[in-house]
Amino acid sequence: MSLGTLPPVATTGPVRIVGTGLLGASIGLSLATRGVDVVLHDSSRTALALARDVGAGRLPAHDDAPVRLVVVAAPPDVTAEVVIAELAAHPHAVVTDVASVKGAVLDELVAAGADLSRYVGSHPMAGRERSGPTAARADLFAGRPWVIAGSDHSSAEAVLAVRQLATDLGATPLAMEAREHDAAVAVVSHVPQVVASLVAARLTDAPAAALDLSGQGLRDVTRIASSDAPLWTSILAANAAAVRSVLMDLRADLDVVIDALGEADVPHGTAAVGALGALARTVTAGNLGVARIPGKHGGAPRHYEVVTVLVPDAPGELARLFSDVGDAEVNIEDLQLEHSPRQPVGLAMISVLTGRSAPLEKELVARGWRVANRG
Amino acid sequence: MSLGTLPPVATTGPVRIVGTGLLGASIGLSLATRGVDVVLHDSSRTALALARDVGAGRLPAHDDAPVRLVVVAAPPDVTAEVVIAELAAHPHAVVTDVASVKGAVLDELVAAGADLSRYVGSHPMAGRERSGPTAARADLFAGRPWVIAGSDHSSAEAVLAVRQLATDLGATPLAMEAREHDAAVAVVSHVPQVVASLVAARLTDAPAAALDLSGQGLRDVTRIASSDAPLWTSILAANAAAVRSVLMDLRADLDVVIDALGEADVPHGTAAVGALGALARTVTAGNLGVARIPGKHGGAPRHYEVVTVLVPDAPGELARLFSDVGDAEVNIEDLQLEHSPRQPVGLAMISVLTGRSAPLEKELVARGWRVANRG
Repeated sequence: MSLGTLPPVATTGPVRIVGTGLLGASIGLSLATRGVDVVLHDSSRTALALARDVGAGRLPAHDDAPVRLVVVAAPPDVTAEVVIAELAAHPHAVVTDVASVKGAVLDELVAAGADLSRYVGSHPMAGRERSGPTAARADLFAGRPWVIAGSDHSSAEAVLAVRQLATDLGATPLAMEAREHDAAVAVVSHVPQVVASLVAARLTDAPAAALDLSGQGLRDVTRIASSDAPLWTSILAANAAAVRSVLMDLRADLDVVIDALGEADVPHGTAAVGALGALARTVTAGNLGVARIPGKHGGAPRHYEVVTVLVPDAPGELARLFSDVGDAEVNIEDLQLEHSPRQPVGLAMISVLTGRSAPLEKELVARGWRVANRG
Repeated sequence: MSLGTLPPVATTGPVRIVGTGLLGASIGLSLATRGVDVVLHDSSRTALALARDVGAGRLPAHDDAPVRLVVVAAPPDVTAEVVIAELAAHPHAVVTDVASVKGAVLDELVAAGADLSRYVGSHPMAGRERSGPTAARADLFAGRPWVIAGSDHSSAEAVLAVRQLATDLGATPLAMEAREHDAAVAVVSHVPQVVASLVAARLTDAPAAALDLSGQGLRDVTRIASSDAPLWTSILAANAAAVRSVLMDLRADLDVVIDALGEADVPHGTAAVGALGALARTVTAGNLGVARIPGKHGGAPRHYEVVTVLVPDAPGELARLFSDVGDAEVNIEDLQLEHSPRQPVGLAMISVLTGRSAPLEKELVARGWRVANRG
């Protein structure tokens, strides 16, 4: 793909965006900069003015043409009532929302007797770690999945309009039903978020010396535990049933581990075979689960070889390393950096396709790099 | 530090290494290549021959000088009995082991009436994802923490000898008592491992469409769930009491979340304030815990700014990016690569020190890169 430009859009305006936080302002910015008429609304005058100033769209005028598409980008707990109001206020417009939970919104629309033919829920999987209109970027959604959650009542035209919006923003549309979406994000996003918080919470009263032994594994498991508490409280509450269901299954597995550890806590390696078997099955089930996560580009999971290189902690050293990797004509599939306490050297773990680690290692060693682990 | 060389060693031989898997062979290789007399032993003739062939040391001879230092690198469940035998067989040698759990080993030595003055347990935090003597590397321990777990009975000379070994291998020695070590690795390593497995296990029966929504958060939380089941079974069993204690605290926190979600699972946002408060406190406790993980080089935790760059998936593109970052004279503190399903473009999330993201973004944009998120 070419850098620095976005392709022309198929969405036609006026597009009305309700809620000009990060998501709403980014959608507006992407459309407005490519000539679509975008009308902004936010209950906060400050957020609205900021969104206009960053180029996300204009304020409404009395002689505006009828709105074609409404995007509700309000907080999850008020999304349904805003969608209901917008469906009523714009009787010829398609209305979508971008809330991260879809079933609760749909339930409220059904209960309110809203015109479901013109509503298609959606969920762009982007932008969770920033907030506010000043963080808006036209390419926030580039390369991200965007769930299109139409209901049985959605018209084909409405579904098409929302798919088109996702495609215009550079996202990859994925069709799902609302409940299917909520169950999916419970298991791949919300439960990992809760569990990362629970593991990180165990660190709050650990001795400082224990933290000195922190490795990359702990950093990986807890990275998302630094997320925003109010946002996640509302997401978890809105998807409470699906998240609770997965957490209860997880707790049943945890109980098995705790019981097995109780039986294994005996001196001199005399633990019952059953206890060890339960521990082994837990780790093996994890092996099977992680192998199901799609590889790069959504293909079948791939097994990479890892080349670990010691990198002095100085500007330019990583650039020199990747320049050397590029010269070796090996593509980097994944990459992690690791640092140990009190050492002025880092480890770069470079994942490459099977069969490429040996030639890469040879090339790097020839160029003076220290390769720490055979891949 | 200079690349391609290791400094001279202070450890004097003969050093006897019992167990020539990855750790034992790597220790032998590092010492032997720098002139230390290393004598190898392994109950597997194959492993022993392979270790000798990779240069980790020599086989014993009848006229060997008395051993000065014994390193027991046997599987965790047989470590104590091997240490006891080595203390008896080499009455003037210091004996250490490298098992990842220390309290259970010490208990067995005490129960057996072993000479504790010459024993100092240790734990190098390295090399868990490879195995076997052919994976040995002389610099496996470079930049890694190495716990020195002396007991009240350890002589100063014995502690010094083991510290010296760690330093010779390029590791950073950290003194801890055995129980303190076991509690520390339970919270920073063993529990994250178990929990990563539990989260990944929930993916085994999730629909394929759900996996399509996998993001970097899920990948991070579950990465270590691909670890070896037999190895982790023995580690968890050997540290059963400490791991169980942390898991029970975690389960109590999980119960609070499950109960709160049950109370929050009501229509139209009418969840009890108490339930939302419990969810918010869980996420906030995670925020506090993750903030305690030491930053690079063991300093106070730092908050980095993140610059996210879209990178075409082609050889040489990352090299070009890092070359441009190097030209901007900005040091990369951390780095993550993220790929979305079915997109030929990746995101490079570059962590830089506070205040450096704006100049870096400006420089990258000027060089034609698409920067996706304001840092």
